[in-house]
Amino acid sequence: MEPISAPSRERLLDALRFDANGLIAAIAQQHDTGEVLMLAWMDRAAVEESLATGRAVYYSRSRKALWRKGETSGQTQRLIDLRMDCDGDAVLLLVDQAGVACHTGRRSCFSWALRDGELTSIAPVLADPKALYGQ
Amino acid sequence: MEPISAPSRERLLDALRFDANGLIAAIAQQHDTGEVLMLAWMDRAAVEESLATGRAVYYSRSRKALWRKGETSGQTQRLIDLRMDCDGDAVLLLVDQAGVACHTGRRSCFSWALRDGELTSIAPVLADPKALYGQ
Repeated sequence: MEPISAPSRERLLDALRFDANGLIAAIAQQHDTGEVLMLAWMDRAAVEESLATGRAVYYSRSRKALWRKGETSGQTQRLIDLRMDCDGDAVLLLVDQAGVACHTGRRSCFSWALRDGELTSIAPVLADPKALYGQ
Repeated sequence: MEPISAPSRERLLDALRFDANGLIAAIAQQHDTGEVLMLAWMDRAAVEESLATGRAVYYSRSRKALWRKGETSGQTQRLIDLRMDCDGDAVLLLVDQAGVACHTGRRSCFSWALRDGELTSIAPVLADPKALYGQ
């Protein structure tokens, strides 16, 4: 995605309905395979910076700060498109994920499901979390 | 998806981390095409009924009641799989969507994006909302 100009960013930001905490839900999807990678949150500054830089930036509710995806782990998300839903309280980020999206080292955070009645990991660990986070 | 037994449902429900309002975020994705259709919310009863019946059921925050998707509009979602994310506060529903997911008559709720600097509808209206909701 080409960086989006400030007036265009404002048009999108004006249409978004941030909640009482100033947040909207953000789904990240791999643009070509369709894999749903993660669900995170964005505040106004995160949307603004994502559009301006072409890199996915979220808001970390635990750290109460902007979360530049991949800043520590190197697992960045290049933004391909950002779509808004019908009531403006959620966005879908089409991204190109470098490596893995999940802090457990799995490609997608949505990697657990019931199989034969048991809650099971259904996706392989592709990267060592200790290596990702330098522990 | 075969209906999930009560003990298996309990295993999943015990792993989910419902928020202070008793809700988790739920993404619906068309199972074969990968289209992200909508973001909604589920409470414990919605997860339970979805797994027991194989039909997607959400919790409507505006109506403060269970929302059996398609009950009014006929645009039901057959549940193919339900996946949990790494911290248990969001789920991904792989569904087979009958007709359209969005109340505007578009296939996906995520149908608005910036194009040439303007916020634009990027998907066609496939069904008349008045017909869907009998108005």
